[in-house]
Amino acid sequence: MSQTDPFRATRALFDLPDGLVYLDGNSLGALPKSVGRRVADVISGEWGRSLIGAWNSAGWVDLPRRVGDRVGRLIGAPAGTVTMGDTLSIKVYQALAAALDLKPDRRVILSDTGNFPTDLYMAEGLIASLGRGHELRVVEPEAVEAAIDESVAAVMLTQVDYRTGRLHDMAALTARSHAAGALTIWDLAHSAGALPVDVSGAGADFAVGCTYKYLNGGPGAPAFIFVAPHLAANVRPALSGWFGHDAPFAFEPAYRPAAGVERMRVGTPPILALAALDAALDVWDGIDMGTVRARSIALGELFVREVRTGVPDLELASPADPAARGSQVSFRHTQGYAVMQALIAEGVIGDYRAPDIMRFGFTPLYLGEEEVRRGAAVLVDILRTGRWDTPDFRRRNRVT
Amino acid sequence: MSQTDPFRATRALFDLPDGLVYLDGNSLGALPKSVGRRVADVISGEWGRSLIGAWNSAGWVDLPRRVGDRVGRLIGAPAGTVTMGDTLSIKVYQALAAALDLKPDRRVILSDTGNFPTDLYMAEGLIASLGRGHELRVVEPEAVEAAIDESVAAVMLTQVDYRTGRLHDMAALTARSHAAGALTIWDLAHSAGALPVDVSGAGADFAVGCTYKYLNGGPGAPAFIFVAPHLAANVRPALSGWFGHDAPFAFEPAYRPAAGVERMRVGTPPILALAALDAALDVWDGIDMGTVRARSIALGELFVREVRTGVPDLELASPADPAARGSQVSFRHTQGYAVMQALIAEGVIGDYRAPDIMRFGFTPLYLGEEEVRRGAAVLVDILRTGRWDTPDFRRRNRVT
Repeated sequence: MSQTDPFRATRALFDLPDGLVYLDGNSLGALPKSVGRRVADVISGEWGRSLIGAWNSAGWVDLPRRVGDRVGRLIGAPAGTVTMGDTLSIKVYQALAAALDLKPDRRVILSDTGNFPTDLYMAEGLIASLGRGHELRVVEPEAVEAAIDESVAAVMLTQVDYRTGRLHDMAALTARSHAAGALTIWDLAHSAGALPVDVSGAGADFAVGCTYKYLNGGPGAPAFIFVAPHLAANVRPALSGWFGHDAPFAFEPAYRPAAGVERMRVGTPPILALAALDAALDVWDGIDMGTVRARSIALGELFVREVRTGVPDLELASPADPAARGSQVSFRHTQGYAVMQALIAEGVIGDYRAPDIMRFGFTPLYLGEEEVRRGAAVLVDILRTGRWDTPDFRRRNRVT
Repeated sequence: MSQTDPFRATRALFDLPDGLVYLDGNSLGALPKSVGRRVADVISGEWGRSLIGAWNSAGWVDLPRRVGDRVGRLIGAPAGTVTMGDTLSIKVYQALAAALDLKPDRRVILSDTGNFPTDLYMAEGLIASLGRGHELRVVEPEAVEAAIDESVAAVMLTQVDYRTGRLHDMAALTARSHAAGALTIWDLAHSAGALPVDVSGAGADFAVGCTYKYLNGGPGAPAFIFVAPHLAANVRPALSGWFGHDAPFAFEPAYRPAAGVERMRVGTPPILALAALDAALDVWDGIDMGTVRARSIALGELFVREVRTGVPDLELASPADPAARGSQVSFRHTQGYAVMQALIAEGVIGDYRAPDIMRFGFTPLYLGEEEVRRGAAVLVDILRTGRWDTPDFRRRNRVT
């Protein structure tokens, strides 16, 4: 990792507390410096000066499309195939409802135990609403491929497992799904901005994701949805809101879907949040995802090596092969919660997922080799000294 | 309107361009001065300093409930019965899906032609998804009461007509609905912050609304939903997202709804937008809605009087009785679009709704008698001189 690498420049674009080792960008990305100024401009300059007129004069109406195109570039989606808004849960619902509608003779939604719970919950809610006997079939990640058969309407997967980081092969599973006549819905929450993604190349039908992890859009930032162009015009929007109408300001009594992916817009777009995200996306200008991936793997491998050199018996929960995982590394520890509290108390921020997972995310845009070494060293020291296990520490951190 | 009125103080809390007569707070509320500082603090202080830890340390997790309680006070909802998030379209969908689920033997959704189109569109989408032969029955506003019968599952109405300002009697129509065994869904988009609302006193089952109009939450600000306490625990959430789960951070594989209205939360809450709204709601501290209503009526009546004195034949589209309308006044004019462009060009901001409605909203918190007189005078002068109708004006403003 030379001194002339592109990430020296991107690191300077982020505002991070001095001395913090932030290994949780896979949960909430760090703050790009440009966000505060942009949001302040939108509030005082656009809203405050132009008021209602800003919907046109400041281009608010088109912001979901413009931001969608910027996200699209990072996931291999052509211009005009991604739009923004709502939350990932809502976008999962829209994609799944559309997919089931396109496959009226099939009743199975196939997913896996590595999917993020809200995706499964939204499927449950949709199935109950439809009341037509759909089944949510959840298998182990390794069993997905074999479970794709001609009963399956939609294969709904998160590409990168939020706990272990295990990475699905999007192209292969999409091809397998299509061969069985099923549609695919890819949740890219832990993929977008984390590794090269090519929804077009993979032939994905739908893709959704959040933007507050690797895309650094801020807490609760708007979600994205991609619909393959050949499907978009045939999709019936279950959440048929006025901003997805072909003519929102004609105030027609009946719904007519907009052309293409714009029909996946629902209500009035969240302008402050979209502006924050739009500013946050500036840090990706000129960045090649292949370069990000190479550095992400180097940082993850460095972390694993340093930790296992110090604590050889700590169990890696992630695939050992970096090509088989996303941009995170997870370890198992029966007292993972307490260990993570001790780490956080010493300025190394990862997170914990029940029952025993300690997660560490690698975000090359603002995380360097020195911080990764330091994070690993603190983890090793905590585990060797057992200082997460003193009565005083446990009391102060409410570890039970 | 004396010099010692409470609205002198509230006017000072808003940032409005000098000289502008802003009569469109019913579409996008003006900017409260406290919003910019609060959002900047959340971005740089909370997100930037505490990163992922701010979900707990800055109370982000509970923000929808805390803001919901503040909105609740303005609509007569007890603490713990309102939550925030998403958009009004999504909240309409949730309420309607829940209502239909509670009335499985009925097939009619009753609404009126004065409802905002997105409410009708969302109902259309839900009906198509359910595929169980529900009917969206849309009658004239005056015909609603007579149309409530025992086929009706849900009466879904916007209390204040977005075009004419015509006000429904929430208590009477709710009582009538309950007598027929139907549930009510009240859209308070043009009510919350505009006039006294008492969802509890009226016995409303569900109420929803946006917060970017009279509540000044900013463009695309989060929506609210109220569920009557006796129903909340029995409601099945159609949009069953992880933040509506009883234990979102337990990451359980199956959905279990949270207690009460919290189950109407869906995905990760939009923190920047909620913080903006929270700051905007500060201007309501200590404000009595009865006082706001009295001033709103006085301003509306003044506007009507001044306009009709100058242009006696201009047709009032709103009810002449101010008690029968919300906080807006609308006039009809066949060239309403062009006239509105001329008004805007001269710094008087209202808006136009096809085919012939010119709308003017009254927001006592930041709008005074002098501005209302000035707005009326400019409208009268434009109509008398016909200067909206010159070829040059029409060309510059793209009036066809």
